[in-house]
Amino acid sequence: MRSIYCGNLNKSHVGEEVELCGWINKRRDLGGLIFIDLRDREGLVQVVFDPEVEGLMDTANTLRQEFCVQVKGTVRARPDSQVNKDMATGEVEILGTGLIIINRSEPLPLDFNQQNSEERRLKYRYLDLRRLEMSDRIKLRAKASSFVRRFLDGNDFLDIETPVLTKATPEGARDYLVPSRVHKGSFYALPQSPQLFKQLLMMSGFDRYYQIVKCFRDEDLRADRQPEFTQIDLETSFMSSDQVRAMTERLVTEMWQELLDVDLGAFPVMAYSEAMRRFGSDKPDLRNPMELIDVADLVKDVEFKVLAAPANDEKGRVAVLTVPGGAKLSRKQIDEYTKFVGIYGAKGLAWMKVNDRDAGIEGVQSPIAKFLNEEVINGLLERTNAQTGDILLFGADKRNVVNEAMGALRLKVGLDLELTDLNKWAPLWVVDFPMFEEDDEGTLHAVHHPFTAPKDITAQALESAPAGAISDAYDMVINGYEVGGGSVRIHTADMQEAAFRILGIEEQEQQDKFGFLLDALKYGTPPHAGLAFGLDRLVMLLCGTDNIRDVIAFPKTTQASCLLTDAPSLANPDSLKELAIAVAKVEKEAVQQDGE
Amino acid sequence: MRSIYCGNLNKSHVGEEVELCGWINKRRDLGGLIFIDLRDREGLVQVVFDPEVEGLMDTANTLRQEFCVQVKGTVRARPDSQVNKDMATGEVEILGTGLIIINRSEPLPLDFNQQNSEERRLKYRYLDLRRLEMSDRIKLRAKASSFVRRFLDGNDFLDIETPVLTKATPEGARDYLVPSRVHKGSFYALPQSPQLFKQLLMMSGFDRYYQIVKCFRDEDLRADRQPEFTQIDLETSFMSSDQVRAMTERLVTEMWQELLDVDLGAFPVMAYSEAMRRFGSDKPDLRNPMELIDVADLVKDVEFKVLAAPANDEKGRVAVLTVPGGAKLSRKQIDEYTKFVGIYGAKGLAWMKVNDRDAGIEGVQSPIAKFLNEEVINGLLERTNAQTGDILLFGADKRNVVNEAMGALRLKVGLDLELTDLNKWAPLWVVDFPMFEEDDEGTLHAVHHPFTAPKDITAQALESAPAGAISDAYDMVINGYEVGGGSVRIHTADMQEAAFRILGIEEQEQQDKFGFLLDALKYGTPPHAGLAFGLDRLVMLLCGTDNIRDVIAFPKTTQASCLLTDAPSLANPDSLKELAIAVAKVEKEAVQQDGE
Repeated sequence: MRSIYCGNLNKSHVGEEVELCGWINKRRDLGGLIFIDLRDREGLVQVVFDPEVEGLMDTANTLRQEFCVQVKGTVRARPDSQVNKDMATGEVEILGTGLIIINRSEPLPLDFNQQNSEERRLKYRYLDLRRLEMSDRIKLRAKASSFVRRFLDGNDFLDIETPVLTKATPEGARDYLVPSRVHKGSFYALPQSPQLFKQLLMMSGFDRYYQIVKCFRDEDLRADRQPEFTQIDLETSFMSSDQVRAMTERLVTEMWQELLDVDLGAFPVMAYSEAMRRFGSDKPDLRNPMELIDVADLVKDVEFKVLAAPANDEKGRVAVLTVPGGAKLSRKQIDEYTKFVGIYGAKGLAWMKVNDRDAGIEGVQSPIAKFLNEEVINGLLERTNAQTGDILLFGADKRNVVNEAMGALRLKVGLDLELTDLNKWAPLWVVDFPMFEEDDEGTLHAVHHPFTAPKDITAQALESAPAGAISDAYDMVINGYEVGGGSVRIHTADMQEAAFRILGIEEQEQQDKFGFLLDALKYGTPPHAGLAFGLDRLVMLLCGTDNIRDVIAFPKTTQASCLLTDAPSLANPDSLKELAIAVAKVEKEAVQQDGE
Repeated sequence: MRSIYCGNLNKSHVGEEVELCGWINKRRDLGGLIFIDLRDREGLVQVVFDPEVEGLMDTANTLRQEFCVQVKGTVRARPDSQVNKDMATGEVEILGTGLIIINRSEPLPLDFNQQNSEERRLKYRYLDLRRLEMSDRIKLRAKASSFVRRFLDGNDFLDIETPVLTKATPEGARDYLVPSRVHKGSFYALPQSPQLFKQLLMMSGFDRYYQIVKCFRDEDLRADRQPEFTQIDLETSFMSSDQVRAMTERLVTEMWQELLDVDLGAFPVMAYSEAMRRFGSDKPDLRNPMELIDVADLVKDVEFKVLAAPANDEKGRVAVLTVPGGAKLSRKQIDEYTKFVGIYGAKGLAWMKVNDRDAGIEGVQSPIAKFLNEEVINGLLERTNAQTGDILLFGADKRNVVNEAMGALRLKVGLDLELTDLNKWAPLWVVDFPMFEEDDEGTLHAVHHPFTAPKDITAQALESAPAGAISDAYDMVINGYEVGGGSVRIHTADMQEAAFRILGIEEQEQQDKFGFLLDALKYGTPPHAGLAFGLDRLVMLLCGTDNIRDVIAFPKTTQASCLLTDAPSLANPDSLKELAIAVAKVEKEAVQQDGE
């Protein structure tokens, strides 16, 4: 029904007869003529209905916003005075010679000319997606997927599908469960990732696997998480972590080059310990120029316990964030930052304004200055390379509290004071993660997952001193977002059993949950390594938005609801009976009392 | 760790040093030399370890089947006498100059040299997939997906993801349900297809959508069904059914051309009514030359009620299947076919052997001949164009019983007597399906789904005479398999509401289940049409297998179990508590008594 998309018209088509299908984006009546902006997925073009063309004006007169129409017409150049530079097709217009109204539209529940609440946008998602800003994002996502597939197909990766109805595995989040009707009382789990299946595919000899695949986590939802999300999942045999990083870095740099015409350059590689020390984060945003500077040695002998105690604690940290130009912060702003770091467990936020760097102790203004002597203050100014007009912000607490609080503060201050260069791209690799982390009860947990290989260590050595072990894992970070992560995997039963034991998974549980994996490791398993990208996050970065819901056609809310279809919803009682499950009454009532 | 795949080596590499990684497929010791067939995903190559190359024989001596090894060596041409024509790399071999055992293997639980039970193959799927026959199928599947994407990307289709956690829709099968933790007592449904979402995408103006997507049906499983299956799902706006068929036919013919080098030719288009009449099936296997011939008019006056009653019944049918060369069938074989049609509800199978066509009534042999006069018999022989040596098999019953029984018999006899040409490809389109079918209680059901548009009829006319209405739907059939199906969709609220009313979906239910769709139809919905292919079935045909599990890396059994991971399995009681659901005790015990 169409010969070309509206948005693809340009001067080269002048004189051609075209057929267009699309929606009325806008209508203006002027001097007896009717001007229409006609929209399709590729863009807008202006159509003119002129009374001199007979038989169209009556129909044209009934046109309203979002009517779906078919237009025939002639492409003509606009006079210079009427060229619209803001419109891709602004050098041409269509003189309408035919018009069919395919479908009418009632007035829209969304106003395309102003901001609509996200709730309303999600309820009428099919209309929200008509906005070119949104459809461009969905189109860029399709282009990104397509690029990834072409790249991986071209590098001998095989697209192999893994099951969605599968068995619970311990990726660290809650599983979504699916009751089985055939095996009453049993449940499938939706995959948090295809981790074990892709490892099994390496054991089958497929050598290079990939999949763009939906994964599921029943988490308490944060702004950039969705209960279902899409992973670019890949795995290779006989490749080292360096080689996997090189190949996946090339994938991303070529994607940025092709889709944004941006050169990301070579990615710096940073050890986890360095990232934590300098940025208080394992996914540092390197567009932000500020760093944390350790000053424990300078303050460990001062009388001020807030600084001295953590400075003398093996598990403590005292670090300073120097904010260029921060001396202009008001007391109120500093109070707000104090509240902000409190969210992360910091008990306060000591500060020191540098009003005149050349005046030494006389030039600083700080509630804690009275606890520090001249030598300490000069030491701090020197170590932090503070300049007149800066402010020093102090984090002093357990190491993880300082890292979390000051890492978050660094990001917030960077944005508030416009120190972070939002026009820059800052990718990096973070490597050399610890294998395990200890919780407050002293139990060890896997930092990545229990199938991650340690670096240069035997199973015996790992088991005798697990706490200090470094894993052969790597995360790709862009602009402070972890966009991908992976590792070399354990490929011998010895090492896998050692890892399970360290994590407190006893033999019976090993057999019940991972018997098939331990079995599979007996039959000539190749060394293998892989990585998974979060496609939603990559596309979010490509689109320049920080709302992950803007790059998903039909996203869920932070309450895991679909406002469009009203899912989840009550089930048919007969279905539940067939599945042999019942909704527990007590909890249901409790929820209803909460106002459901 | 490798410079080339084993299976890619050929004479052009003679003289080169190569590094290979793979598995020991076979070992032979001969004259002091050790010969290894080394296997990777691309194939096999022979490696020779010769004592004249120092320092390798001790290691080579320990090699056993399925050890994972790295081999360095020199490619050399085999002498003419030793060229192995059965091996793609049979003109060359590798003289080993380095050997590292990467990982040992215990003796396998599968014997690669003989048939293993499917149960065992599924339990050790990661080993079964090492067989080149299996890995070739998975590779062909990856190539097929990749081809489809390239074709559709190249035709302006956008790959857009739709939700997996969604709302129950009525595709005719049971939904898999997923309990919500956040909204206790509510459930998501896994999609039986993205039908409504793709229609909403057309309403959003995306114009051409596709997705290769997992769909889910909790059905009682048949040999060629899986609880999760993969659909090539597509939808277009502003295209007629002819155009959709032309484009998707091109997709399939180009796929067959590229992957199999086979020209499928132009697909014949056959009305549903013709397919049922000639083949008793809406997915006829046209490789089978036999057809059903209607003979009701010839037998409606005979005294034999078995034929005369259905011949005079408006809902009855009397049809003959003429089997070339079938006169040689033994009484026992005919009895078996009689039992076979009984499965489909036929009460018997009358037959007539044509021992001498030229002898007329004297030349036929049949238990029913005595009920028929000469005129009837001559009429039958003439109508069916029977030849000496043929057998006529009679179906006489309600029309749907005759169609099902004789349609199935036609397929079975075709295979048994080798009348079906298994080396041929026989694609076709079946079109002009009825909109609705009536069940035994007289209730109307949608033949496709409730969103299918009728052909050339207004909403009022449809509602006043729904039974005879023809839908604008089309199925693609290849070799008797329905590989794809689609339709023009309803694109006005009037027509959609009429369709719902005809199907007995009252206004409240319309609003509860499809309120968002009826809403969406108000805002300038474009005319749209689409189709979905079953990827698993297409690949099954491409691979020349009739077991759908052979083209899925990790399939489920007909009991919907994964024998590898042992899914589904019992859930953690704490998880169920969090989800506020309980397993109903009564049914669980009942199942256990059944021997679970």
